[in-house]
Formats: sequence, C-alpha cells, structure tokens
Amino acid sequence: MARVLILGSGFAGLNAAKVFAGVKGLEVIIIDQKNYHLFQPLLYQVAAAALSPAEIAVPIRNIFSRYNNIKVFQGKVHKIKADTKSVLTNVGEFRYDYLIMACGARHFYFGNEVWEENAPGLKTIEQAIEIRRRVLTAFENAETENDSDKKVKLLTFVIVGGGSTGVELAGALSELSRFTFAKDFRNIDPKRTRIILIEAGPRILPNFSEKLSLRASRHLEKLGVQVRIFKKVTKIDVDGVNMGDERIEAATVLWAAGIQASSLNRQLKGELDSMGRIVVEPDLSLKHYPEIFVAGDQAHFSHQTGKPLHGIAPVALQQGHFIAKNILKELGDKPREKFHYIDKGQLATIGRNNAVLEIGRLKLGGFWAWIVWLFVHIYYLIGFKNKFVVLLQWASSYLTYQKGARLIVNHDWRFYRDDGLQKKRTH
Amino acid sequence: MARVLILGSGFAGLNAAKVFAGVKGLEVIIIDQKNYHLFQPLLYQVAAAALSPAEIAVPIRNIFSRYNNIKVFQGKVHKIKADTKSVLTNVGEFRYDYLIMACGARHFYFGNEVWEENAPGLKTIEQAIEIRRRVLTAFENAETENDSDKKVKLLTFVIVGGGSTGVELAGALSELSRFTFAKDFRNIDPKRTRIILIEAGPRILPNFSEKLSLRASRHLEKLGVQVRIFKKVTKIDVDGVNMGDERIEAATVLWAAGIQASSLNRQLKGELDSMGRIVVEPDLSLKHYPEIFVAGDQAHFSHQTGKPLHGIAPVALQQGHFIAKNILKELGDKPREKFHYIDKGQLATIGRNNAVLEIGRLKLGGFWAWIVWLFVHIYYLIGFKNKFVVLLQWASSYLTYQKGARLIVNHDWRFYRDDGLQKKRTH
Repeated sequence: MARVLILGSGFAGLNAAKVFAGVKGLEVIIIDQKNYHLFQPLLYQVAAAALSPAEIAVPIRNIFSRYNNIKVFQGKVHKIKADTKSVLTNVGEFRYDYLIMACGARHFYFGNEVWEENAPGLKTIEQAIEIRRRVLTAFENAETENDSDKKVKLLTFVIVGGGSTGVELAGALSELSRFTFAKDFRNIDPKRTRIILIEAGPRILPNFSEKLSLRASRHLEKLGVQVRIFKKVTKIDVDGVNMGDERIEAATVLWAAGIQASSLNRQLKGELDSMGRIVVEPDLSLKHYPEIFVAGDQAHFSHQTGKPLHGIAPVALQQGHFIAKNILKELGDKPREKFHYIDKGQLATIGRNNAVLEIGRLKLGGFWAWIVWLFVHIYYLIGFKNKFVVLLQWASSYLTYQKGARLIVNHDWRFYRDDGLQKKRTH
Repeated sequence: MARVLILGSGFAGLNAAKVFAGVKGLEVIIIDQKNYHLFQPLLYQVAAAALSPAEIAVPIRNIFSRYNNIKVFQGKVHKIKADTKSVLTNVGEFRYDYLIMACGARHFYFGNEVWEENAPGLKTIEQAIEIRRRVLTAFENAETENDSDKKVKLLTFVIVGGGSTGVELAGALSELSRFTFAKDFRNIDPKRTRIILIEAGPRILPNFSEKLSLRASRHLEKLGVQVRIFKKVTKIDVDGVNMGDERIEAATVLWAAGIQASSLNRQLKGELDSMGRIVVEPDLSLKHYPEIFVAGDQAHFSHQTGKPLHGIAPVALQQGHFIAKNILKELGDKPREKFHYIDKGQLATIGRNNAVLEIGRLKLGGFWAWIVWLFVHIYYLIGFKNKFVVLLQWASSYLTYQKGARLIVNHDWRFYRDDGLQKKRTH
C-alpha cells in the first residue's frame, strides 16, 4: 500500500488530502502542529474582534472522519530524512512513498526578531487573540488615563506593512474606533484614534494594479487612516516606532510586513529564494527528490510567467489539488503533468462597504468589489454551520455596527497568578 | 450628585447597574478586572468545546453605552478605604456615597494551592480555554501513543467535586468522547474514555433533594461516568490523583470542589464564614458600614431561613436588583427594606437530553427538566445575537453530535517561542 505523508493542513495540504479521501490502496497521513485547519483570509477579523476563532477554524480530523484511509496526527516535524524517505516528528517517525510539504510561512522581522514582542504578526489564532487583547486594552487604558500625551499614545495604532493583511487590519481598526466604540467611552473620543499604515515601498497593495492601489489608499485616508509610503521602520520598542529620524509614539504596533517560508526548506537540497521558498520543478516536485512535492507559501514556482506565484489562497488550493492528482496519475502508471495556475484574481477589503478586486484585466474597486469579497469568502469558508454563523455575525455587525467578540483574554489561566488587567505600557 | 461604586460585573453587579441606568442625579461607576460580563452557567460548555467564549460574554461598556450616568473602568481593586468612603484601584482612587461589592468567588484548594497547576478550576474564560486545551490534547496525545498504560492514563479524566459544575463537566466530557469523537480517531476508541467524578460527601448535587441526586448519579453511570462518593482527594500531581491509599493515574484532572469568596472581604470589619463570605444585615449592608452592600457569592445571607443562600445566579440577580432599589429608596428619603429571596429553583444538566430541576416542592428529572434548562438558559443569556447563535450551536450540535469549538489554543502567542504541541505529560 502506497503511503502519502502530508505536512501541514493549510489550503494546500487540506485540498491534497481531499483528493485522496476514500481512494483504495492508498494510506494518507496528515501531520500538523495544530488540531485545526485555519481559514487564514479572515484571521484579521478575529484580531479586530469581529469573529470568534472557532468560526474560522475546523478540526482536521473531523473533516476526514468518514475516510478511514486518512489519519491525522498533531505533531511537530523535527527532521526530513529525504534520502531514506521518512520524517521524524515528536510523535514518532513516519516513512513515506510520497511527501507533500505544505507548511506555509511565518512572519519575519528581517533579522530584528526582538521586534516581535512589541509588534506581533498575524499568522496564528494565538496571535490574533493577542492583537485583539492589545487593541481592546489600549482603549480601556486610554479611558482611565488622565495624562493627555499618554492618552494620545494609547490611541495611536501603527501597522507596519501595506500588503493585504496590513490594509485589512487598518480598515477593521478604523471601523472599530469610528463606529463600534462610538458611544462606549466617556473619557475618550474613540474617533480621534490615529491609525498609521507604514509601507516601505512606493505604494500599498503592491500585488494590485497601481490604479487600485491608489484607490485603496484614498479610501483608507477617508476612513481616517494615515498611509505613509517610502517609510522604512528602523526600530520598534515598547513605546513606539522609529523610521529613520522620525519617531511615532504608539502603545500598539502590529506587524504585517515580512514573511518567510517554513524553515523545513533549509533541510532539503535545493535553491531557496530571498523569502526562504524552495524552487520547485514544473510539476511542483523537487529536483533531487521527485517523490517530494512542495506547495503553497513554502514553494517558489516561476515556470509559468517567469515570476514566482504569490502566496495567496487560490495558488495553495490549486497546487494541493494538482499534486494529489499527479500522484494518483503516477500510481496509475500514467505520466505526470505540469502545473498551470489558473488566475482567479485577487481581493482585499478596505473596511466597511469597500474592497478592491482584480481578475485578469478586470479591475474593480468600491462597493461591488466588497460584495464579491463577501460571497467569495463565505463560499470558500469550510463547514455549513461556520458559513451560516459567520454570515450572521457579519449581518448583525453590518446593521448594528457592533462586533461579536470584544473579549480581552489573558495569557495566564491560573487564578492566583493572573493579575487581571495587564499593567500599562508593558502589555 | 450621589455616586454609587459597583465592584464586579457578574450577575449581581450588572443587575444593580441596570436599575440605575438613566437615573438622573446619580453617577454610577462599575469597576471590573475583565472588560466583559460572563454568563457563568454556560462556562462548562466552553471548556467542553461546545461554545466559543464570545458567545457567553458581552462587553460591559457596550451594555450601558446609551446611559451616560454609567461609567465603566477595567481595573483591579487594591484597597477598600471604608472609613473615608473610597476605593483604591490600579487605575486611580474612587470616592463613593454607596458601595456595592459583587466580586464573586474563586476556586479554592483548601490550602493545597499547588494543586491548581495540575487541576485547573472553572471560573474564568482563560480557565475554560485551558481545560478545553487539556482535554482535546489528551485525545490527540492518546492517538499517537503506543504504550497501552500511557494510553489508558491519557484517556482517564478525573473531576474533583460533585456539585453542578462537576456534574455538568462530567456529562459534557462523556458526550464528547462517546458521540462527538466517535469516528474521528484511528488508534484509539474514544468510547473507552474513563471519566471519574469524585465527591467527598455522601452524594453528588448536595443542593438538590436526595432523590434527584440519586437519579443524576444513575444517569451519569449510564453515560459511562464513574461516580465515587465519600472519597477525599489527598494529593494531585502531574500523573494523577490520590484518595488516601487509592491512586488513579490520569493525565487530566479538573477541579470543581472548593470555592472561596473574594479576598476583599478580609479588608472589611465583619464576620466571615468558612467560605470567606461576609455576614450581611437583612438589607444586605454591612453592620459597621450601612453605605456598603455586599451581594452574590461574596455575601453570607441567612436571615431568611437560618441557612445561608446558595451561590447561584438567581440569588445574585435578585440581590443586585434589590440593593439598587433600596439605594434609590433611601435617596428618595424612604426607609430601606429587608431582602427576601424568591426561590426560583435549581437546575443542573447531565449530558444530552437529561437534567434535574427543583422548584420548591416540584422535583423533576429527565428530558423535560432538560427542556426547561434549555429555555431558562437561553432566556437569561444576554444579547439577542448571543441567544440566537447559542441556540444555533446547540441545535447543530444536538442534530449532528458535533461541537463548534474544538480548538487547541496555546498560551504563548509568539511564533518563535511557541513549540506548537505541548509536550506530553507536562501540559
């Protein structure tokens, strides 16, 4: 019996496993550090207190419970033994006939890893809950602060990185402060919140066309977000951000800038690009190991256009599906095919009622792009109940301007050590 | 302008504030360590992965956003200065004309506070998430464990304390292992999970009549829960529980036994009972400080029947309401009244389709008691959307046997320090 080992259950890994579900004579093992598949495109809504974590995450083993040929283990990979075709994890060693690596990427601080403490990224549920805690706590602390300088600092939110995550976070924070919090505070005016989006390059949303990126910029400014381009962050500390000579005092700094592919890539023979992605063959396999495939954010695939594909959900979904189909072909003694990405376009939402959309030559911004964004995200969200609950949360939040998950949840669960409110300035 | 200071926004504090909402010439300040009101009776469903935290919690300031005479501060109380009528907190000092103390209770380990690490209680959202993490992780670890003794230990869950919380947790864990997980694992049979409920006294649910308590016991045993009465826990460590000479090896131990009232009581002149509750006057005020009222789990009120009222939601709700009404009376130059508790009965659910109910002489067990339980809890749950979403989760979970929030969320949000899966046995 052939065995396929899938590392990671993001869009690529999950979609590959779905192809294998119920296939006879094939054993599939999925290994992930988490027990759930996370619908990453909506993670910023958890950070912005609009959705609960469980609404955008489903237990992996539950998705495949009906298929006995699929086994799921929660574990962490220690070593890829490519020459002997096995993977060593903290829950044992697994041999494989085919290996699909889909471990994604993590945030990267370009060598300034110490910045993480004061500028969390947004890749995991834990990080989203932490960002939510920091944002909500900043408003709570501002309400009790009498010193006006400190109050301004508490109400200043800096987002580093003008890609989709940064733009979506900025839009969501603006909505939170201008609408949701409008009447909830007595000693502060949440509308005077400063949200500053910092981008090192010449424009935000660099993956979109210049026209749409300008449009997004203008709309963010209408929402009260200051967009700062050509600004490189040189220091982040507990009180704010430096950009060369310029200094912004801010109690909350969020990181949406650098990304680096899973460090497992470094264990494999093969060329890595500047983002740590491994260069794959036209069929997404590795040059030296044709039985190893790499998909999603972990892979550098540039055979189609000469430029590497972006790290977005449609790429990961198509690659996962393609790899699984190719493996089934080979097992049926047919030749492998080459991967061809079908561009389904790009979307980014900018607060309430607004989004940008680019599908091939179609470039759309504004309300109708936002409607498309809504339907695409609901459609791809896994699980009937999740779709329904998220729709309900959105409808309610759209009509009432309220958010469904405004909870400040602390790290420490122990009663005796938990001092409730985090002390000011220390987070 | 008179000022009422309310400490704590549980059932008592919140219900008092509601009476004051919009009353002219009266300023109300609510201080709570959390930014939300928690619907505590459903907290065990968060621990059992059935509900998300945000579904049973609402931001306090949002409840009162329309009422400008009510201010909410997130803060921690350091000192009650009863003689000068002020309260010192980490967010400043607040003077008051009337003080309502409604800070509730916390778990208590009878001097064995070190047990907490290996046997978390269930009073806060953080604790519920931690219990959920431990329970789900035990199943994940059992799936990868080859040693059969270790496997048995991982699938053994001990709950200490046979009150409502312990019984409800036991029922929910049984449902999880027998139905929800039935087909999700390949290397374990979740139905062979051992759930052991330990009670030091002669019977579980001691607040209910003997007949119902026996009935609950029998139903729990039908669900596969072992009920052990007259057993006193003498030691809890990382591998299990001792009860005198007897030892149970268990990877997961949960604490639902002792409770102690807020330690703020010790700052006040007045008699405390064995649970740390302060003895109050017939109008719920303190003997030496008629302007200080104490309500809910923090108060010992025995003027009505000679025995102290139980620490249940209806008592807290009625006391909070009563205190606020009495203050308004006094401000209107009318005499204070004495508190009289109207017994609305008691309810506890025992897994799917079963509950016990006691209202005065009416004693009911089984399916219809469970239906009453459902409606009472939905009715009292705050917020239209929360009611609707919780109903939906319950309906879906009832029909599909699935649970909506099966996420293992870790403590550490930092990417670089988070090692994903917790190591076995160390939690």
